[in-house]
Amino acid sequence: MTSAPALGSASDVGDLPTSELLTHGRTALDWIARYLDHPERVSVLSQVVPGEIRQMLPVSPPEQPEPLGDILRDFETQIVPGITHWNHPGFFGYFATSSSVPGILGELLVAALDVKAMLWRTSPAATELEQVTTDWLRQMLGLPGGWFGFLNDTASISSMLALAAAREAKPELDIRARGMAGRADLPRLRVYTSRHAHSSIDKAALALGIGLENVVHVDVDDEFRMRPDALAAAIADDSANGFLPLACVATVGTTSTTSIDPVPAIAEICRRESIWLHVDGAYGGVAAIVPEMRHVLAGVDHADSLVVNPHKWLFTPFDCSAFFTTKPHLLEQAFSLVHEYLVTPERESVVDFMNYGVQLGRRFRALKLWMVIRGFGTAGLAARIRAHCALARQFADWVHADPDWEVVAPVPFSLVCFRFAPSGIHEEVLNDLNAKILERVNATGEVFLSHTKLDDRYVLRLAVGNIRTEEKHVRRAWETLKEQSITVSP
Amino acid sequence: MTSAPALGSASDVGDLPTSELLTHGRTALDWIARYLDHPERVSVLSQVVPGEIRQMLPVSPPEQPEPLGDILRDFETQIVPGITHWNHPGFFGYFATSSSVPGILGELLVAALDVKAMLWRTSPAATELEQVTTDWLRQMLGLPGGWFGFLNDTASISSMLALAAAREAKPELDIRARGMAGRADLPRLRVYTSRHAHSSIDKAALALGIGLENVVHVDVDDEFRMRPDALAAAIADDSANGFLPLACVATVGTTSTTSIDPVPAIAEICRRESIWLHVDGAYGGVAAIVPEMRHVLAGVDHADSLVVNPHKWLFTPFDCSAFFTTKPHLLEQAFSLVHEYLVTPERESVVDFMNYGVQLGRRFRALKLWMVIRGFGTAGLAARIRAHCALARQFADWVHADPDWEVVAPVPFSLVCFRFAPSGIHEEVLNDLNAKILERVNATGEVFLSHTKLDDRYVLRLAVGNIRTEEKHVRRAWETLKEQSITVSP
Repeated sequence: MTSAPALGSASDVGDLPTSELLTHGRTALDWIARYLDHPERVSVLSQVVPGEIRQMLPVSPPEQPEPLGDILRDFETQIVPGITHWNHPGFFGYFATSSSVPGILGELLVAALDVKAMLWRTSPAATELEQVTTDWLRQMLGLPGGWFGFLNDTASISSMLALAAAREAKPELDIRARGMAGRADLPRLRVYTSRHAHSSIDKAALALGIGLENVVHVDVDDEFRMRPDALAAAIADDSANGFLPLACVATVGTTSTTSIDPVPAIAEICRRESIWLHVDGAYGGVAAIVPEMRHVLAGVDHADSLVVNPHKWLFTPFDCSAFFTTKPHLLEQAFSLVHEYLVTPERESVVDFMNYGVQLGRRFRALKLWMVIRGFGTAGLAARIRAHCALARQFADWVHADPDWEVVAPVPFSLVCFRFAPSGIHEEVLNDLNAKILERVNATGEVFLSHTKLDDRYVLRLAVGNIRTEEKHVRRAWETLKEQSITVSP
Repeated sequence: MTSAPALGSASDVGDLPTSELLTHGRTALDWIARYLDHPERVSVLSQVVPGEIRQMLPVSPPEQPEPLGDILRDFETQIVPGITHWNHPGFFGYFATSSSVPGILGELLVAALDVKAMLWRTSPAATELEQVTTDWLRQMLGLPGGWFGFLNDTASISSMLALAAAREAKPELDIRARGMAGRADLPRLRVYTSRHAHSSIDKAALALGIGLENVVHVDVDDEFRMRPDALAAAIADDSANGFLPLACVATVGTTSTTSIDPVPAIAEICRRESIWLHVDGAYGGVAAIVPEMRHVLAGVDHADSLVVNPHKWLFTPFDCSAFFTTKPHLLEQAFSLVHEYLVTPERESVVDFMNYGVQLGRRFRALKLWMVIRGFGTAGLAARIRAHCALARQFADWVHADPDWEVVAPVPFSLVCFRFAPSGIHEEVLNDLNAKILERVNATGEVFLSHTKLDDRYVLRLAVGNIRTEEKHVRRAWETLKEQSITVSP
C-alpha cells in the first residue's frame, strides 16, 4: 500500500480529515479486492512460529501520530503473514465460514455509524431492523410465527442466555434475586446434552454457577446422535436422586460430525418433564433455508429456544448469532435491569434489546445481515448452501472410492469426517499417521483442515462453508491429502 | 447512492464479484465522508416514532438478489432516518463515544479477513496483536508490568468474567465443577459495589447465579463516591452473618456522575479481607493516559482486575473492551475447556484467548485498536481526552454562571451533571421541568443529551466524548437548553 504524507502533530484534536478516509479507504478496498480475487497469494494456515509477529512490533506505542499509509503497509507486511485465512476458499477447518461483499460493506457502514443497539431510542432503526431481519430469518428457517428473535455476538452467549431463561422458567427457584449459594431449599440443577455437544454448553453451565458436574452428557447412537432413551433414563435417575432437571440442549449439526439429535423425540421428553429445550443449530440450523433440507429443524417448533449463526454459514461477517425463543418474557425476566439513566419515555411501547441479555452495549448487527439477505436473496443463499453440501458429498465419494481411506460418519451437511486407514495398520499407528498428514497438509498452505476424535480414533474434518470455495479447492484438498499420506506411510 | 445493474440469478454460487465491492465500497466511503463532514444534515436523536422504520421494510425477505446500489439507496432513505447518531459531534448522551477514520478503516479490514481470534493458530497475528495492543494500553494507563490484557466485546462481559474469576480465587468453593445449587457447604456469596455502580455489575451477579440480593450497594459520600467505612462495615456485617465476601467492584467514572471511588482505601480493605477487587473504569479509566490525569487510576495497581473501554473514549468503533488482570491463571481456571476439535500442537507454548472467557468465537478487535493508537499517537489521544475535559469544564462554567441553572456534581472528567433550577420552584416541579427541557432539546435534533436521578432530583447529563465535538457544539447545546428552558418555564 502506498504511503501518505505525515499528519499534523499530536496536539491537534478532532478526527483525521475525511480525505484520509477516502484515500486510504480506497487503498484498503483495492487490497481487499486483490485479496479475495487471488487467494493463492497467501498461505491458508499462517506459517509463522509463536512470537514471530509480536517480535516485529514495537514494544511501546508511538507518541506521535503515524501516517495511515505506513499503518496499511505494516498491515500487509507485519500482520497478514500472521493471519490464518478463514476467508480463503481453501479453509476447511472447524466450521468454514466467510464474509462476503454485501457483509463487508455492511460492516463498513456499521463502523461509520458506530451506534449501540441497546435501547430503541439509541437507534430505532437498529432495533427495528433487528426485528425485521430476525423475522426474515425465522421465515427462511420455516419457524412458526410468534418466535421472537434477536442477534447476539456468539452462540456461546446465546446458549448461556437460554440456560439462564430456563432458570426463570421455574420462578419458584427465585435464582435471579436470591442466587444459588447458601440456600437449603435448592436441589442440584441438571442440564442434559449429548456427549457430542459443543463446549459452549459446558461453559454456559459453569458460568451460570450450575457446575460442570451437573451437565449430563447423554450417550449417543452409532451415528453420534443423542439417544432419547438415554436422556429419559438420565432424567429419571436424577429425579429419583432429588436433582432438578432444568434444561436440555439438543444439537442440529454437532461440531465433531454434524450429527443431528432427534429433536422431535427429545422435545416430547422435555415437554413431559417440563424441561426447557434449547436447540443449538449454530452451524447446521441455517441449512433449513434450503427447501429440501428443511427437515433438519424438524421438531424445533416444540423447542423453547434456538440459536443459528449467520456468521457461520450465511456469509455474514463475524459476529452475528441469531437467538430465537417462544418465551421472550422469561429472557426479559432474567435480565431486565433498567437504571434511571436508561429510562426512556417510550419504554412501554418499544422493544429495548438490552433487556434480553447480559450485554448492555450491542452492535448494529442487523445491517450486515439485511445486506447479505438482500444481496443474495433467499434462493441465492439456499443455492450456496446446497452447493456446499454437494461439494462435501463429492469429497466423501472420492474418499469412499479409495481403499486406503474411509469416511467415518454420515454427511448430512457440508462436513466430511474421514481418515487415512490402509488395511493392516494398528489403530494407534493410524492416529499418529493422520495427525502427521494433517500437519503436513496444513503446512503446504494451500488448504487448511482440522481434526476431532471419535471413539479414540483421530479423524480429519473437511468442512465446506466459504462462499468462494469451488470444486477445484476441494479437489486440491483431496490431492494434497493423498500426496501427504504417501510421505507418512509406514 | 447510485443504482447498479441487476445481478445474476439466485442460482449462481460464489460471492458477488469484487468489482461490486470496489464500486459500492467507494460509494459507501463517499457517503461516510459526507456524513462525517456535514453532521448538520441529520438529527442527532432519530425523530421517528415506534414502528415507523419497520413499516417501511418488506415483511418477507426477497427471494432473488437485489442490486447493491438499491440496498445502499434504501440504507440512506429507510435506515438512516431511524439512526440516533452516536457519531455526531452533537451527541452528548450516556457516554458520548465515536469511531474515527483509523478505526473505520480497521473494521473494514477486519470484516474482509473475518478471522476468529479464539486460538493462536486460528490467526497468530490476531492473538499476538491483541497481546501487543493491550500491553501498549497498559503502558499508556500507567499500570505496572505483569498485568495481562485481552479484548472483550463489552464491559458487561469483562465485569462478569472478573466476578467469575473471584469465585475461582476461592478454590475450596469448587464452583466450576460442582456449581452452587443443592450444596449445604456453601455460604451466601456477597459482592460489594457502590449505589452508583453500573447496572452491569448487578447483571453479572444475577447471570453468575450469585443473585441480586447478594449485591451489596454500599453507601456513597456527598460526591457520589463509595464510602470505605461503609464498605468495611458491610463486610463485617456479612461475615458476622456467615456470608462469604467474594468480590468488590470499585468504579472510576460512575455512569450517573463520573465519580471516582477511593480505590486506594478500598484496595486496602479488599487485601485485608481477601476479596477480589475489580475496577470498572469502562469510561473513566482511559483518562489515565493523560499525564495530569494519571491519578484517576491511583490504587488500581493493588486491584485484581480492571476494565477500560477503548470503544467508549478512545475513538475505537464499538466493540472493544479491554480487560486487565494480574491473575490470568484464575480466568483460565474458570473458563478453560478444550474439546478435542480445539486441541492444537502448539497449545503449551502460546496463549489461546478462548480459554479466558465465555465466548469461543472472538473478533479481531486488536487491529482497529492498533490503527487508532498509531493513527493518533499516544500524545494525540491524550490531547483529545484533555480537550474533552476542557469543553466539559467550559460548559460547567456557563451553567455555573447562570443563576437559573446549577451544576449538581463535580466534573472530574468530561461529563457535566446539571439542571434548570430557578429559585423558588418546588423540587417536584423542577423534575418535571427538566424532563420537559430534555425532551424538547432532543426534539430539536441539533444535540442529544440524556439524564439521571441524584437523590430524587432529575438531572441532565452532558457527556463530551465524540472526537469531532468542538466548542461550537457544546455552545449550541447550552443555547438550546436555555431556549427550551424558556418554553417550559412556569
